[in-house]
Amino acid sequence: MKVKILDTTLRDGEQTPGVSLTPEEKLRIAIKLDSIGVDIIEAGSAITSAGERDAIKKIASEGLSAEICSFARALKQDIDSAIECDVDSIHLVIPTSDIHIQYKMRKTKNEILEQAIESVEYALEHGLVVELSAEDATRSDFNFLKKIFTEGINAGAQRICACDTVGVLTPERAYDFYKKLSKLDVPLAAHCHNDFGLATANSLSAIRAGANEVHVTVNGIGERAGNAALEEVVVALHSLYNIKTNIKINELYETSKMVARLTGMYLQPNKAIVGENAFAHESGIHANGVIKKAETYEPITPEMVGHKRRFVLGKHIGRSLLKKHLERLKVKVNDKQLNEIFQRIKELGDKGKCVTDADLQAITEDVLGIPSKKIVEVQEVTVVSGNKVTPTASVKLKINGKEILESSTGVGPVDAAIKAMKKCLDYFADISLEEYHVDAITGGTDALIDVMVKLKYKDKIISARSTQPDIVMASVDAFVSGANRLLLEVYENENIRA
Amino acid sequence: MKVKILDTTLRDGEQTPGVSLTPEEKLRIAIKLDSIGVDIIEAGSAITSAGERDAIKKIASEGLSAEICSFARALKQDIDSAIECDVDSIHLVIPTSDIHIQYKMRKTKNEILEQAIESVEYALEHGLVVELSAEDATRSDFNFLKKIFTEGINAGAQRICACDTVGVLTPERAYDFYKKLSKLDVPLAAHCHNDFGLATANSLSAIRAGANEVHVTVNGIGERAGNAALEEVVVALHSLYNIKTNIKINELYETSKMVARLTGMYLQPNKAIVGENAFAHESGIHANGVIKKAETYEPITPEMVGHKRRFVLGKHIGRSLLKKHLERLKVKVNDKQLNEIFQRIKELGDKGKCVTDADLQAITEDVLGIPSKKIVEVQEVTVVSGNKVTPTASVKLKINGKEILESSTGVGPVDAAIKAMKKCLDYFADISLEEYHVDAITGGTDALIDVMVKLKYKDKIISARSTQPDIVMASVDAFVSGANRLLLEVYENENIRA
Repeated sequence: MKVKILDTTLRDGEQTPGVSLTPEEKLRIAIKLDSIGVDIIEAGSAITSAGERDAIKKIASEGLSAEICSFARALKQDIDSAIECDVDSIHLVIPTSDIHIQYKMRKTKNEILEQAIESVEYALEHGLVVELSAEDATRSDFNFLKKIFTEGINAGAQRICACDTVGVLTPERAYDFYKKLSKLDVPLAAHCHNDFGLATANSLSAIRAGANEVHVTVNGIGERAGNAALEEVVVALHSLYNIKTNIKINELYETSKMVARLTGMYLQPNKAIVGENAFAHESGIHANGVIKKAETYEPITPEMVGHKRRFVLGKHIGRSLLKKHLERLKVKVNDKQLNEIFQRIKELGDKGKCVTDADLQAITEDVLGIPSKKIVEVQEVTVVSGNKVTPTASVKLKINGKEILESSTGVGPVDAAIKAMKKCLDYFADISLEEYHVDAITGGTDALIDVMVKLKYKDKIISARSTQPDIVMASVDAFVSGANRLLLEVYENENIRA
Repeated sequence: MKVKILDTTLRDGEQTPGVSLTPEEKLRIAIKLDSIGVDIIEAGSAITSAGERDAIKKIASEGLSAEICSFARALKQDIDSAIECDVDSIHLVIPTSDIHIQYKMRKTKNEILEQAIESVEYALEHGLVVELSAEDATRSDFNFLKKIFTEGINAGAQRICACDTVGVLTPERAYDFYKKLSKLDVPLAAHCHNDFGLATANSLSAIRAGANEVHVTVNGIGERAGNAALEEVVVALHSLYNIKTNIKINELYETSKMVARLTGMYLQPNKAIVGENAFAHESGIHANGVIKKAETYEPITPEMVGHKRRFVLGKHIGRSLLKKHLERLKVKVNDKQLNEIFQRIKELGDKGKCVTDADLQAITEDVLGIPSKKIVEVQEVTVVSGNKVTPTASVKLKINGKEILESSTGVGPVDAAIKAMKKCLDYFADISLEEYHVDAITGGTDALIDVMVKLKYKDKIISARSTQPDIVMASVDAFVSGANRLLLEVYENENIRA
């Protein structure tokens, strides 16, 4: 028996303060969710706006395998909006806690019960599948909750859902709570929020207790601290409980990246399963263990979720990892040299710096007494920009002793400068900019800006960075520092000469 | 009986790939941790580097109330390094799982046991308090684990710790596992990792089962998916279990911000307890409920953790929240106008835009037929920048009909442009830039850049934004859009005339 996944990224997730998706973006996410095996897609709340209805209609008419669902309050206008969008089902939500009924709804329990039943009947008459859902169920009078569900089921509701709206369950209480509800005659769904960081654990407890369906969002986005995260619930079920779902686990990382990009809700690096650091190793002990046998410090493989393992240089580096990095650079060192490089990296770390490929190269060259070959040197950079000026840059680089001057326009000063540099470099090698990253800065306009670039030449990708208050010069310096690394290899490996 | 908090932000947290702190930064964090009531501060791993020892010495000699601890492997050199730093205690870690012993240590169980006991004795002889800690304890042969702990305690270890190194516990297994260990004669600590998103839940289970101490990091930073988060564990203990700690809960938000800033590990907005959205409300239903009674959608108050409630405008907005926003703008509208504004906001949301204060003002003016007073208009912006040019900007603004031309240099083109604009505005009102935020962009150099500014005039703070590929023009437009809002009020309220 597989647990059903209702994904509410497009409803609860889109209610995240700061998130707004266009109908086209919602459709793209829905198609992705369908393709990875989500059983029920809550596509939105049809009453919200004309654009929301447009999005839900598009999703409902796309011919997806998933059941397409709209959120609806127990109001005729909400259900009518859902009907208009031609969805398969509604997530029909009615508050059941005293505090919600009294303060938000300003009604009596009997009125709420009546409203719920009328809504179930109305939706069923119009051919909708009804998942009757109790809002703030976990702070409700249990007898009243049970009564609403029982009468709702009698009225024809095909599924029920109990929401931990403000995330106050604990794993133990979740187990007891959903256990009692699982004795009712229809499939039961859990809907858990993450206010105390327990949404995943509570969802797992609910499923152990007999819930057949679980509401989740990609990356756990949602109101306040968000909802249970699709990737955490599904992978924990799979790896810790041996409980299956229809989700294609190896597409979780890609799905996470897509949702982060479209919603603008970027993840912290240490997000479980899908964060950039979820399979990254820095410290000596850990990296050493992973190199010898990955399972020492990895509970699952990164490939299982479509992610990648990454080793990061830093002050906790051990000698064995450093050796591996030097091998990658094709540098041979004796023990004394290794020690010296090791110490220098530690010093850089003690200064609060992380170590990029370009840093490691510079240190290694210095220690080995290799004259630091700077194939590319910046001679002059000038950029002009403004509202009545097309952003324009001129760049003079000295590449392998030869001065090259190029200019370019761009969409902004950084773009113009990078394009001009690329033109200079094109005489030597076709280096492409694979990734350009500006670190999120909150502060004044004179704060330090950290630019990280990834450059590619043929199969080789390297990273470089520069930190300074001027975004244009930080971008130029990072690019040049990376280009130096790459061109050095080009020259050494291929004997290309200018 | 209070649960003791060992905070390992400065050790496990600093092992986060990408994080490196200077000794001064480590000291600042240690002072903060001490001031909020952390019982034991794991200040680092003394063997790591000279800078690390410098940091630990500084922290140990600062006269803090907290016990200062160093991580140490069961090696003489590690313990000697800790002794050199004059710490109170060591977190003495020895691997106990077959996979670690066999593949990483390449030893037999007997050798490991001997190494552990010798290390305990050596550390005790040198006056250190010893917390004997089993790495990968949760994947270990339980009998061997118990044997190491029992013999370690017989040798004098004052505390024991069992690490869920790769985060494979579930709340149920954590309870059983720590229950068995709690029967040993010394205080027991839990150390849980977050690979499946269960670190908080597992730590809580361990405490319910009898663990007296818990290892946490601020914001849950650490290797891979990180460690149990201080703020989640402490607040859940307090609010869901009525279990006390010495932590000053109302300083958790500030502590989180400080650690995020110093480590560069920014949080996703939906991080529980301390994320920017943890107490933010957008959707109509939620915001409406919170306005009527905060407890409807907030399990704890934001003030409890030193955070703030925030309402965000967007397409899920309801009429009651919109009314509240309009009151704030001192705008009176009739029902028809309210409806029209409401629809326009929904349309903006459908286009994937969030609604800033400046947007709301523009819509309202338009609907009310107030001629859109643009007090400030941008006439000309020119910036020059480069490696041999001091970044310089000239800006011509038309303010209240009068053309003002100013120029400024800056640390970069954006800084120069903003300073020139501020000079122009200074003739009218002393508007200050409170916050400047560039959204993290990963992509090409021609990607859209989203600039958000917060401007202040006297007590009033407003937000504005601009999104375009040119960072200079995005910054200028956001600033001008915000300045318009503020100056309008200046002119209307104070009759300042140029």
